[in-house]
Amino acid sequence: MEHVSFSPLSRVAICGGTHGNEMSGVYIVREMQKQKVDQKGSVSITTVLSNPRAVDACRRYMETDLNRCFTDALLSAPITDSTPYELRRAHELNAQLGPKGSREAVDLLCDIHNTTANMGMCLIFYSSDWINLHIYKYIQSKMTSAPVRAFLIDVPPSEAYSLETVGKHGVAIEVGPQPHGVLRADIFNMAKDAVDLSIEWLQKFNSGSAFEGGEVEAYTLVRSVDYPRDPTTNDITAAIHPQLQDNDFKLLHPGDPVFQSFSGEMVKHEGEDLYPLFVNECAYYEKKIAFHLTKKITVTLPTVSVKED
Amino acid sequence: MEHVSFSPLSRVAICGGTHGNEMSGVYIVREMQKQKVDQKGSVSITTVLSNPRAVDACRRYMETDLNRCFTDALLSAPITDSTPYELRRAHELNAQLGPKGSREAVDLLCDIHNTTANMGMCLIFYSSDWINLHIYKYIQSKMTSAPVRAFLIDVPPSEAYSLETVGKHGVAIEVGPQPHGVLRADIFNMAKDAVDLSIEWLQKFNSGSAFEGGEVEAYTLVRSVDYPRDPTTNDITAAIHPQLQDNDFKLLHPGDPVFQSFSGEMVKHEGEDLYPLFVNECAYYEKKIAFHLTKKITVTLPTVSVKED
Repeated sequence: MEHVSFSPLSRVAICGGTHGNEMSGVYIVREMQKQKVDQKGSVSITTVLSNPRAVDACRRYMETDLNRCFTDALLSAPITDSTPYELRRAHELNAQLGPKGSREAVDLLCDIHNTTANMGMCLIFYSSDWINLHIYKYIQSKMTSAPVRAFLIDVPPSEAYSLETVGKHGVAIEVGPQPHGVLRADIFNMAKDAVDLSIEWLQKFNSGSAFEGGEVEAYTLVRSVDYPRDPTTNDITAAIHPQLQDNDFKLLHPGDPVFQSFSGEMVKHEGEDLYPLFVNECAYYEKKIAFHLTKKITVTLPTVSVKED
Repeated sequence: MEHVSFSPLSRVAICGGTHGNEMSGVYIVREMQKQKVDQKGSVSITTVLSNPRAVDACRRYMETDLNRCFTDALLSAPITDSTPYELRRAHELNAQLGPKGSREAVDLLCDIHNTTANMGMCLIFYSSDWINLHIYKYIQSKMTSAPVRAFLIDVPPSEAYSLETVGKHGVAIEVGPQPHGVLRADIFNMAKDAVDLSIEWLQKFNSGSAFEGGEVEAYTLVRSVDYPRDPTTNDITAAIHPQLQDNDFKLLHPGDPVFQSFSGEMVKHEGEDLYPLFVNECAYYEKKIAFHLTKKITVTLPTVSVKED
């Protein structure tokens, strides 16, 4: 089996409140700051409340979605009087935790999100990065409170727009279901466990543990599905069907119901067998996406360990 | 058994979007408007999107909570340049559907809300009004999809602040759990059933059916419970305990867990046996109320029928 070694991973950033109404991250970061958690063994920890104004307002964002601001193009755009608050904040975060793509960037950036969709614990990352995938494998092997899955987004780093891409390695911890603006203890505990296990993995890695390779499963996007609409007004004309609601990651077969129109008709899934994801997620609802359809892939990991300097 | 007769109840208003991020009412009203529902037998129906600006923004309200604007004092206050949008809108709604307390007011006002709390179908009204209570009894006898309960608020009409108090009779239809900003088909269907059954009851009543009296159960407020807080910063220091979360209307005994602090300690219920309500409701969270504690009461209803003119 392949064996890959990496330099020590000693600097981690734990971020919350990137979306100001996703309360798990807000409260995890505040609690870590209150308890002055800044070092665990070989790992130095920076905790960041990413969008404090949106957190104060309990809104996703004030002017523009902060978690869409971290492309190379936006991070290198000049700041002017008309630059939205969130893009200014993205430049600050990039200076503090990055710069993205540089040697100065933190080794691992964990950004805590939550979703109204019934997704359990889902780790989201932008590339088949061995470190990210090994941390996912570790969390999956240790957590018992919910299924742990990974959603891989296949976009080049320069175009990847979310905060976790500022780190050398980066993962979004997405947990649900939890309404926006609400803090649930079960979701808080799951997200906190994932943060603690990520830090624990880094400590073990730095102390010389080799993490054995093997196969892991992950999901990748096939296409997004919009709500049915009135062709003249563009108004949504149907809700997610009760048989699909809350069934993220449950294989959809052709003919399975996906929408229930307000006048009572059923709309069925067409095409191949696929896995729905982010079903009826509030933020996607705002932007008019009903759910994603994904396929399951298998990734073969090498064994990884720390490089002796 | 007592028998009370009332004049025909021929004018009903169905309102949604009083809180702009509670989607069930928004979509029920839009669908009724699209289908041009304005008369069912003896009942004329007015449909109203109460707070259109907040609906467009998918926020609870823009400047002040519309559903706190319908006291006699606020409805008689002069409108000035600094009057918030929602108070102006309250005056408009009072002119359209009231005036509150007058003979011109609609006979029944149903205002559709939803909650992040796991409350099933809960009808909320401000006084022991025989018509409201008979409609509640009727819905309870017909609905099978969820438990149907009533929460009675004991406040004089002049001080009652919510929209449904503008009608001669009025009920808030509160359904959950549903995240704010999300539309779930199951919650939509429940709220729509309650609206249809209310109109069906009015039709039967007007056509001469006598509705037999009897006993109904309802809940009344004992006290509200705040989240535990840091005495210096006033920050919330605990989440609703997983054993209380989602257990609205499940009797709390002394010693039952109610909060789980972020540092791990459990806080227990003290005092007498009571029923929790609106547990971890998003809007109350915003205003820092963790839940209400209520007691169950029994109300004896007279038989009611229409008065022959």
